[in-house]
Amino acid sequence: MRILILGGDGYLGWPTAMHLSQRGHEVAVVDNMARRGYDNELGAESLVPIASLQERVAIWEAITGHRIQSFFGDICDYTFFEPVVKNFRPEAIVHYGEQRAAPYSMIDRRHAVYTQVNNVVGNLNVLYAMADHVPDCHLVKLGTMGEYGTPNIDIEEGYITITHKGRTDTLPYPKQPGSFYHLSKVHDSHNIMFCCRIWGLRATDLNQGVVYGVDTDEIKLDERLRTRFDYDGVFGTVLNRFLVQAVAGIPLTVYGKGGQTRGFLDIRDTLACVDLAIQNPAAAGEFRVFNQFTEQFSVLDLAKAVQEAGRELGMNVELNHMPNPRVEKEDHYYNAANTRLLDLGLQPHYLSETLLESVIGVVQQHRGNIKQHLIMPSVNWRETGSTAVQEEAAPAAD
Amino acid sequence: MRILILGGDGYLGWPTAMHLSQRGHEVAVVDNMARRGYDNELGAESLVPIASLQERVAIWEAITGHRIQSFFGDICDYTFFEPVVKNFRPEAIVHYGEQRAAPYSMIDRRHAVYTQVNNVVGNLNVLYAMADHVPDCHLVKLGTMGEYGTPNIDIEEGYITITHKGRTDTLPYPKQPGSFYHLSKVHDSHNIMFCCRIWGLRATDLNQGVVYGVDTDEIKLDERLRTRFDYDGVFGTVLNRFLVQAVAGIPLTVYGKGGQTRGFLDIRDTLACVDLAIQNPAAAGEFRVFNQFTEQFSVLDLAKAVQEAGRELGMNVELNHMPNPRVEKEDHYYNAANTRLLDLGLQPHYLSETLLESVIGVVQQHRGNIKQHLIMPSVNWRETGSTAVQEEAAPAAD
Repeated sequence: MRILILGGDGYLGWPTAMHLSQRGHEVAVVDNMARRGYDNELGAESLVPIASLQERVAIWEAITGHRIQSFFGDICDYTFFEPVVKNFRPEAIVHYGEQRAAPYSMIDRRHAVYTQVNNVVGNLNVLYAMADHVPDCHLVKLGTMGEYGTPNIDIEEGYITITHKGRTDTLPYPKQPGSFYHLSKVHDSHNIMFCCRIWGLRATDLNQGVVYGVDTDEIKLDERLRTRFDYDGVFGTVLNRFLVQAVAGIPLTVYGKGGQTRGFLDIRDTLACVDLAIQNPAAAGEFRVFNQFTEQFSVLDLAKAVQEAGRELGMNVELNHMPNPRVEKEDHYYNAANTRLLDLGLQPHYLSETLLESVIGVVQQHRGNIKQHLIMPSVNWRETGSTAVQEEAAPAAD
Repeated sequence: MRILILGGDGYLGWPTAMHLSQRGHEVAVVDNMARRGYDNELGAESLVPIASLQERVAIWEAITGHRIQSFFGDICDYTFFEPVVKNFRPEAIVHYGEQRAAPYSMIDRRHAVYTQVNNVVGNLNVLYAMADHVPDCHLVKLGTMGEYGTPNIDIEEGYITITHKGRTDTLPYPKQPGSFYHLSKVHDSHNIMFCCRIWGLRATDLNQGVVYGVDTDEIKLDERLRTRFDYDGVFGTVLNRFLVQAVAGIPLTVYGKGGQTRGFLDIRDTLACVDLAIQNPAAAGEFRVFNQFTEQFSVLDLAKAVQEAGRELGMNVELNHMPNPRVEKEDHYYNAANTRLLDLGLQPHYLSETLLESVIGVVQQHRGNIKQHLIMPSVNWRETGSTAVQEEAAPAAD
């Protein structure tokens, strides 16, 4: 199958490209290197050194014989993106090509506007390019579990059947996103659903939980194929950040009470889920939503798991409950459905001490790269301008 | 009270400015003349000749002694908009400053992207400017009943209480908008709700129905104060368009069976609703939603009402059921709540034969301005590019 991966240079995009290429698909990636640009802006970088996209595809071809085409450009620029779709004629598009950090979107007005315009316009361009050139193509869009927020009822997969005043309908599940980034994904979901309806497009929205982990089968083939590993306060997700803090001997930064419960999954399961979605496409006109996570944890659960794994390795890991820079409930009901991908055959890799210890091993290997001044949260939801990002990015006392 | 009206040169913005100015408020308007620009693009114009904004405010001051300040510029340009808010320090902002036509947003990709970026970015700028400079200001935002779509259950005012698997929560009402324009309003609503939550802003989202009518108390003071009256296939709303068709002797264009039911209101009630919202502001941190319409009609009901009013005036009005250029249900349940503005004291002007005949009178007065080639729908929801807009705009056979 011809598969186009948008954001194919990113944390998940690159492993996905290799995974699908290894399985015999004709894979092409599109990327404008925005993610590497954010690093330049923030003075941050992946803990694990990563090769350039050009090197990655060359190494991949040398090792496996599989060629991954790459297109450098911005999907928001339709004069670039339209010909890519028109000429490559993908049968599936995996869309990771968005700004994906909640704190980045909350830095200030400029970053909020950038995030929403970048994500919404890129996604609209994908929809128009599909409708005009490959109307039968299946869009596999990365959404987020954060679209739902933390309602006091069970979270279903995209839709909920409501009986109200004696009548019943199945409607889009209400959304209560918690950042301008999460909002951009809600905007995308509404736009995609509409285009499925009016143009008969087929789409799967993968409302993904928080991903952790560094290794996939393909990455294990050669160290130079590694994907990025973020631990900074802006782009680092919680478990990866905790593991780096454990290795660096810094107390784990638990926001507030740590009662915030979310869905999580192993990076290998992300690849499996995307693969399953591609193998089982949505019907023409169908806007399908899968909740893509395998387990629920509270932030405090995770901190304690890292503490325990560290203890096994002889490390003394402390927790630091700090004021929550985000506006979110710290004590709330959370129960989200995630059966649709399991029904398609997903075999989850559950979080285990082995996994934690293995990631700790990778972090230890690269501990010399840890920049401590980047770890603390530097963006506060309650402020409209977080100059702290610039200030804290200055390497003060390391 | 100091009130800033965004889009203060538009169909509703200008009458709102006069209405509030007449009641003793200190009113300022912001406009970038985008609406007049769309006319230039489409080769269309208001049936009723309208004065420039500069003339309007001068005439208004000459007649009433009340001064309305005006700021020319784009709210998407923060270097323009921020100083306006910072210096005027509004206590209420009435936000009409968005691209407001569903067909315009559906012309092609460029117009879809323009509509969503223009509306979302302008609205984000409003939110940031409020948070930074007038955090206690009350945002009165014009939304649309079209955000809800046509669910098979009753439409409530912004929120719905759902009991699901034994638990209950009150959540944002699910949205199923029917155009890229309506989607932009859904995006706005989500963004505003979030900013009320994180920054404690106060906002009222007025989910307005379709407005009809040409006269308000202030407009009646002087003909040169008239507001625009659109009848073209892109910006003309259904009732106004029908009335022009009746006068022009063209069959009323009923899309499909005409069973599409929507909420409607008289332009005088729009002003009253905005005024009531301002007089009764939302609480700090509250995102309040009012459904702003007074009656529900199907498109066919309206066509028949126009037919009847025409008959009284000796006109022979025919109906032309044509293929629906939109993708929408033509036979559906529709029952929307609208009690919150009534509870605040709204005294509706219901649609009457007198009103219809009075608008027909205004249309007849300006019948020489009718450009017949502009009336038919020129944008098709099922197509990604409606070159028809350009083609039909050419004055072929008039």
